[in-house]
Amino acid sequence: MNTKDLLDQIAFIKEIDKVKYIQRKTKLFNSDRCENDAEHSWHLALMAIVLAEHSDEPIDVLKVVKMVLIHDIVEIDAGDVFMYDTLKNHLNTDEERLAAARIFGLLPKKQAEEFISIWEEFEAGETNEAKFAKSMDRLEPLLQNTSNNGGTWREFDVKYDKVYEKKSVIKNGSKSLWNYAEGLINDSVEKGILKK
Amino acid sequence: MNTKDLLDQIAFIKEIDKVKYIQRKTKLFNSDRCENDAEHSWHLALMAIVLAEHSDEPIDVLKVVKMVLIHDIVEIDAGDVFMYDTLKNHLNTDEERLAAARIFGLLPKKQAEEFISIWEEFEAGETNEAKFAKSMDRLEPLLQNTSNNGGTWREFDVKYDKVYEKKSVIKNGSKSLWNYAEGLINDSVEKGILKK
Repeated sequence: MNTKDLLDQIAFIKEIDKVKYIQRKTKLFNSDRCENDAEHSWHLALMAIVLAEHSDEPIDVLKVVKMVLIHDIVEIDAGDVFMYDTLKNHLNTDEERLAAARIFGLLPKKQAEEFISIWEEFEAGETNEAKFAKSMDRLEPLLQNTSNNGGTWREFDVKYDKVYEKKSVIKNGSKSLWNYAEGLINDSVEKGILKK
Repeated sequence: MNTKDLLDQIAFIKEIDKVKYIQRKTKLFNSDRCENDAEHSWHLALMAIVLAEHSDEPIDVLKVVKMVLIHDIVEIDAGDVFMYDTLKNHLNTDEERLAAARIFGLLPKKQAEEFISIWEEFEAGETNEAKFAKSMDRLEPLLQNTSNNGGTWREFDVKYDKVYEKKSVIKNGSKSLWNYAEGLINDSVEKGILKK
């Protein structure tokens, strides 16, 4: 064992504890308590494992799980950006790149490079694994909002067109999950918890 | 796609949200806020990925990750048992088996069987993957307590011998991690945050 490497890994493990303090706008299921990024990432990892068979393309499930477990770690430095915030950029910002370099950079060099590469692959959303990981990231808050009488859609007056556009990313990973999601969105309009 | 299977998977995904409400005794790093089971499981999954090279035996990392992501789901029905509680049984209780059957049983049959089998494998602690997963489960609160001026050891007056015995499970998964953990325990005695 290289002791320096282990100490660097422990430093990373301690640093990422901060993810547990980052509050999302979305609430837990049937709840008014906000979800934090660690809870969200745990849920996405299990969703990816449970729903993997619905991916339209073959996927390396461990890679998808790594993506969703680490995808929000950069928010320790860069903060959470609400999906329907119209003023803030949702792309891979300079601030997020710096955060990735600092936080993943705590790890031994080879591991740091692997984590930064996986994070960038997720952000780019072009590989089969990134597409499926992003499907999970869009599906979870849809399930939450429909369980919460509209949730953040009602709270922030987000309309059908915007929701449909953001959620259609699910289609890139899985047509069957998109078919289900589209049904949920349309049902929400009928129920009056999402406005056209 | 089998629609019934997807709906069963979604029912499971909604049910496990309750893991986010299960409070552990252990506090977050440098904090007095209790950790919940979802945050704990997320942290263990990333620890398993980051520390996998320290396993003494070859391991299937995805299997270890599945184990730690699901290991506390039975607590939705059976509740959390504190590691140093001397009155309660920590073995795989009937209550936990019933919980596993009910909650994993929400999934399509084949998947339910897989999840129950992985959970039982973790509980038995005999395979390489289960040993390493259990190492993670013992290491995280050790890191937390040493960052919290003794944490639950001081709060519940837990002595060195008990801590040493419980933590020595780490040795079954990784001698190098145990070497590091043993150092932390001994340092804690020197610092006066753990009593002999």
